[in-house]
Amino acid sequence: MKAILVEETTQNLFIGKTEMPQMSKNDLLIKVKASALNRADLLQKRGLYPPPPGASPILGLEMSGIVEDIGENVIGWKKGDFVCALLPGGGYAEYAVIPAAMAMRIPQNLSFEEAAAIPEVFLTAFLNMVWLGKLKKGETILIHAGASGVGTSAIQLAREIGARAIVTAGTDEKRSLCLSLGAEVAIDYKEGPFLQKVMDATSGKGVNLIFDFIGAPYWEQNIGSLAVDGKLILIGTMGGSKLHEVNLGKLLFKRIQVIGTALRSQPIEKKMALTKDFTEFALPKFENGHLKPIVDSIWNWDKVNEAHSYMEQNKNAGKIVLRIS
Amino acid sequence: MKAILVEETTQNLFIGKTEMPQMSKNDLLIKVKASALNRADLLQKRGLYPPPPGASPILGLEMSGIVEDIGENVIGWKKGDFVCALLPGGGYAEYAVIPAAMAMRIPQNLSFEEAAAIPEVFLTAFLNMVWLGKLKKGETILIHAGASGVGTSAIQLAREIGARAIVTAGTDEKRSLCLSLGAEVAIDYKEGPFLQKVMDATSGKGVNLIFDFIGAPYWEQNIGSLAVDGKLILIGTMGGSKLHEVNLGKLLFKRIQVIGTALRSQPIEKKMALTKDFTEFALPKFENGHLKPIVDSIWNWDKVNEAHSYMEQNKNAGKIVLRIS
Repeated sequence: MKAILVEETTQNLFIGKTEMPQMSKNDLLIKVKASALNRADLLQKRGLYPPPPGASPILGLEMSGIVEDIGENVIGWKKGDFVCALLPGGGYAEYAVIPAAMAMRIPQNLSFEEAAAIPEVFLTAFLNMVWLGKLKKGETILIHAGASGVGTSAIQLAREIGARAIVTAGTDEKRSLCLSLGAEVAIDYKEGPFLQKVMDATSGKGVNLIFDFIGAPYWEQNIGSLAVDGKLILIGTMGGSKLHEVNLGKLLFKRIQVIGTALRSQPIEKKMALTKDFTEFALPKFENGHLKPIVDSIWNWDKVNEAHSYMEQNKNAGKIVLRIS
Repeated sequence: MKAILVEETTQNLFIGKTEMPQMSKNDLLIKVKASALNRADLLQKRGLYPPPPGASPILGLEMSGIVEDIGENVIGWKKGDFVCALLPGGGYAEYAVIPAAMAMRIPQNLSFEEAAAIPEVFLTAFLNMVWLGKLKKGETILIHAGASGVGTSAIQLAREIGARAIVTAGTDEKRSLCLSLGAEVAIDYKEGPFLQKVMDATSGKGVNLIFDFIGAPYWEQNIGSLAVDGKLILIGTMGGSKLHEVNLGKLLFKRIQVIGTALRSQPIEKKMALTKDFTEFALPKFENGHLKPIVDSIWNWDKVNEAHSYMEQNKNAGKIVLRIS
């Protein structure tokens, strides 16, 4: 089959030939129609984020497509079904194999390109907001990088839960997108510290939950922004991971939880359970339009290098989708 | 009534006269028979740990005694009942008032001195092990200060849950106590780093939960000792709270949770719910002898300064009890 491979010296991506993935009894073989970019892809092509043991070495943490073959133990799926799914790797390819329990049925009102924009960001947001963050109706979440894929998913999930979302984003266009999705307050992080703005927006109480992708540069303001019993979910450390001044006393005083999280490294059983929980919560809401995948742009897969470069420049608001043709 | 008061200039404690506490409709008035020391008392007498708003300024976070009067809304209790309870303050006194929902019936096989050694340490261990730590059968907990009040309670709770306990403690006598209560491994922290010993005791996997009272000096080893999805519960920072080198990447990589915790500052509704949960789990186990309060020593309340000094020197293994006479 054809797949996007990494040219080892230049780290350029190109469409080449590789082996078909192998199916087992509980799997589905999918003809991939679309995949989507994640920041992990940018690290992985540079050798900085090796795929977990047993995973495809091909880039791509999600895809949408058509069921082409089913394993002998599989029930509930048939050839021709439209599905999307999280992958441990292998999305940038003509075919992918997934455990049937990881498949999510694509609602009729969504295209393959839209469906490919769902798994990674919505499952990440669901894992961190519902399973780990336990965000409740009436509570407040601070979502950094509000216009990112995870950010736009999180704003919508918070809205559906009945929670308030405060976001940070770096352009007018991104902040408008966040507000249109249901964020109550959108803070321009380029204007200066966000801490006082968060406190003003919460009558001085702070927020119950924070989604952070920045890490060290935001630590002090994040801890300051949390309410008593608040949780800081660390999803990434794009701004650096080394802290040189931490006061553990503040964690005790406000009874704060700091939760390091990652979706990709979770055991498959947890991913299956998460997919099931998420599907029950979210699929009806995608069908009736209350939730929507936010697609920034769609690129044919022969333009994958341009798509990566676009993400590296933080130009996207929502997901960057690859059409596999 | 008589109560132990703080001489402001010398911070010496003395038995003096003060107002009786005021009862409301949902309260019990208790004739106090015994109280017990907590490290918070040492801080509070120096003005370093102010009591929460509305709490008695008198020292003492727990007591046992006899119901002397009941509020008009109270059902289920009568004059003469033997009870023990957590307090936000006011235990070092002849009388204390508690919401009836905070009262725990004293099992017939326990003395007042033993019962006074239960509330603070067992509720702390239960909050952090069951509610926050969610420790499960077959998992492993590392308990620092294993011979402390919270430590000896935690070892017993872990054993009743079916979890393995590894402890650190600084003397042979303390380690023997820990092992006799069910700890599998007792590490002498004075011998050097504990990290490798924890890894050896867990076949290199690390522990699922840590109870830490030390803070900054143990941070790096604690993070290293945790298994994937492990939780570090920060109960105190006796060794210091300022960290100068933290790598947030490790929290993401192992999906670690760092949980700052405190019992005293919890809202009363949470303390009531915790008392109810704990009582259902633990009272039958105190009655049949599977759980026991570990009393290091009993001091008449006119020896309170000596008792404080004894705690300051870390001489105790288990609780230091004050008899109120």
